[in-house]
Amino acid sequence: MSIASEKISDASATSQDDLASYCQDVARRAKAASRVLAQVDGAAKNAWLARSAELLRNNGDAIAAANALDLEAAPDYGLTEAQVDRLRLTPDRIESIAVGLEQIASLADPIGQVIDSTVRPNGLRILKTRVPLGVVFFIYESRPNVTADAAAICTKAGNAVILRGGKEAAHSSRAIVELLQKAAQETGLPEDAVQLVSTTDRDAVGHFLHLPEQIDVAIPRGGEGLIRRVASEAQMPVIKHYDGNCHVYVDASADFDMACEIVVNSKCHRMGVCNAAESLLVHADVANEFLPVVASALLANEVELRGDPRTCELVPQAVAATDDDYGAEFLGPKISIKTVASTSEAIEHINQYGSHHTDAIVTKDLATAEQFANEVDSAAVVVNASTRFNDGGEFGLGAEIGISTDKFHARGPCGVEELTSYKYVVHGTGQIRG
Amino acid sequence: MSIASEKISDASATSQDDLASYCQDVARRAKAASRVLAQVDGAAKNAWLARSAELLRNNGDAIAAANALDLEAAPDYGLTEAQVDRLRLTPDRIESIAVGLEQIASLADPIGQVIDSTVRPNGLRILKTRVPLGVVFFIYESRPNVTADAAAICTKAGNAVILRGGKEAAHSSRAIVELLQKAAQETGLPEDAVQLVSTTDRDAVGHFLHLPEQIDVAIPRGGEGLIRRVASEAQMPVIKHYDGNCHVYVDASADFDMACEIVVNSKCHRMGVCNAAESLLVHADVANEFLPVVASALLANEVELRGDPRTCELVPQAVAATDDDYGAEFLGPKISIKTVASTSEAIEHINQYGSHHTDAIVTKDLATAEQFANEVDSAAVVVNASTRFNDGGEFGLGAEIGISTDKFHARGPCGVEELTSYKYVVHGTGQIRG
Repeated sequence: MSIASEKISDASATSQDDLASYCQDVARRAKAASRVLAQVDGAAKNAWLARSAELLRNNGDAIAAANALDLEAAPDYGLTEAQVDRLRLTPDRIESIAVGLEQIASLADPIGQVIDSTVRPNGLRILKTRVPLGVVFFIYESRPNVTADAAAICTKAGNAVILRGGKEAAHSSRAIVELLQKAAQETGLPEDAVQLVSTTDRDAVGHFLHLPEQIDVAIPRGGEGLIRRVASEAQMPVIKHYDGNCHVYVDASADFDMACEIVVNSKCHRMGVCNAAESLLVHADVANEFLPVVASALLANEVELRGDPRTCELVPQAVAATDDDYGAEFLGPKISIKTVASTSEAIEHINQYGSHHTDAIVTKDLATAEQFANEVDSAAVVVNASTRFNDGGEFGLGAEIGISTDKFHARGPCGVEELTSYKYVVHGTGQIRG
Repeated sequence: MSIASEKISDASATSQDDLASYCQDVARRAKAASRVLAQVDGAAKNAWLARSAELLRNNGDAIAAANALDLEAAPDYGLTEAQVDRLRLTPDRIESIAVGLEQIASLADPIGQVIDSTVRPNGLRILKTRVPLGVVFFIYESRPNVTADAAAICTKAGNAVILRGGKEAAHSSRAIVELLQKAAQETGLPEDAVQLVSTTDRDAVGHFLHLPEQIDVAIPRGGEGLIRRVASEAQMPVIKHYDGNCHVYVDASADFDMACEIVVNSKCHRMGVCNAAESLLVHADVANEFLPVVASALLANEVELRGDPRTCELVPQAVAATDDDYGAEFLGPKISIKTVASTSEAIEHINQYGSHHTDAIVTKDLATAEQFANEVDSAAVVVNASTRFNDGGEFGLGAEIGISTDKFHARGPCGVEELTSYKYVVHGTGQIRG
């Protein structure tokens, strides 16, 4: 429907001038669509989401056919088995994309919400009112379900979105976006509300990142290299989502059964995700008793242990940890372990080696819990629960476009509200300044 | 007290290597101070503010002596009379700086405030808790009172601040910062909570802007050139404060007396400020009746009128407006005027020519007021009051460090809360993900 998705062009065939003007055109259309979208009511956005879900369900075969083209090409891109698995769209996965859109439809409309208000002594009523950010440029890698999620979250928040997916999922993403655009046409949303970048030329990203007048925020989701590139080139704000080197600290007062369950769940529930634990800190006073127990639970899950000298002494299967191990996001069956003399030492270690993402403590002591919650400088600090809960869905945001490791604008899971701004609306009865 | 303010060095005497390492040292100290400051309670911050106010009052002579050095040097810097006036610190102005600090002390402490909370079906209690941003790098021009204001707002929000003031006010700013630092020492705040950059070398700004690990946000306040430079060089987020091309739109249903008062107040109350009106839009249906009235009120205030053909027809003193006039922030006794056929045309004109700062409507019609408030894309939209109210003090924020024309993180007046972030604190009883 929009020219942005008419064809998946060959990178080499596009001259830099053509590419620049293509990107400018996409961005200009997005900006125009965002102006319309900002005034669209919640019912229209929800009708679009519902119709999109319906079209995804009704067109499972077409999506599967497009997906087959991507799966066929996967070996050429050198995808690992796990990556191919993430790329695959089964009927169950298509159903779950559709359900995701319906869940986003069920969220309250954020636009127009009065976030704060004051009545001034002179009678002025000042309302701080939620508005969309404008245009979101979303750069992501090869999971095609992210295409629908991101489009839905951005649009629910009243933003137009420019989607730049990985080339590995190009056909699948295009099939999904065409259905979302068809739904937009049928339900009266602006046709450029959701655009998919049609070229896989890497330089396109650079062109978009230099259009701050049209694009209000860039959100890269993928490896650290991608995020660093976007952060350094972008002329507009960026919501960054760096790595998750998450910790579980087991305090001397911890319930050992609870601690063991939380460590194993944080590490093993899903190893390849950003909120999985990568490091275990144990209070020295309980190391003798607790470390062998937790170690055998981790070993039973085939997790490799890298410990400090004390750990290696207590757990024969552990190998010596390096400084790099303490800084690493393993995203796999490895964990670094360290004994600490105090909660303060644990906090210091986390603030130094961690990535300010998610860190948990297991403790029965109130003052210790408060100290940890106050002093650990992370997007989420968890007391007596798994690190795996730092997630938009688990936090009740309905959906998320990523987990920000920034402090500016958005921190932690970014849902619909994190994709909004505000304006002040001031109501007077003729007031002037004296 | 801190080496950062020990001497105002000569730019030419500093090699680039020395300068880089000086800037790194200042930033590192600020980061360390910010970690301490984040844990300081409100009483300590307020004690510092109160003692700072006291020291400013008790050391009026020393401040005046430092200020005299700046005033003496002013002709060398080619300052205009108005600029010299803004530079001057009279006893009244010193008193008002002290009162400003006391007002900031009287504000509620923002840190630790629970902004939002949810209890999840699994019993997890999720608290969204306000925390400081960290380190603020504040770059400003020649008004020395801004030195104290900015330091107070940043510190109240739990941030360390690196102040980079204009060379024209270097001695005055140094005198003020030395007193703030003395108060910090006496009241137990970290000594590097407030640092003044001691070199006037322009390259220092560039060095600081490349330290994103230490500095969490850069806030430039001054001319557009400064802000564009900072925005383009900074490797950390920037709160930008571009120009204010503010409008007053007088709808056909407006009360003419009210409209005339609001136009004159918006334009003439203080002409050199960002929330002064620069443009007047009048509904064509009432142009015949209203334009001559408002024109003579503006002319009585010696405001030059630049109008469209209809305005020039109705007001002989008006000269023809150019497109540039409609885009201009005059900051002086000039106003552009245009008649419009509808509220939609007024909104379109404002969104195209305005600067998304502050725009007002005068109307009696509810639907028109709502349309204007919804569709004008500005930080503040004012219904039936002067544009001059878009100000941190007037909005009840207590104080402001600037008025953001961005949509990201902070929009409109930036007070203490706009200098904060948040973290999620999750309380569980052993929950794990299934």
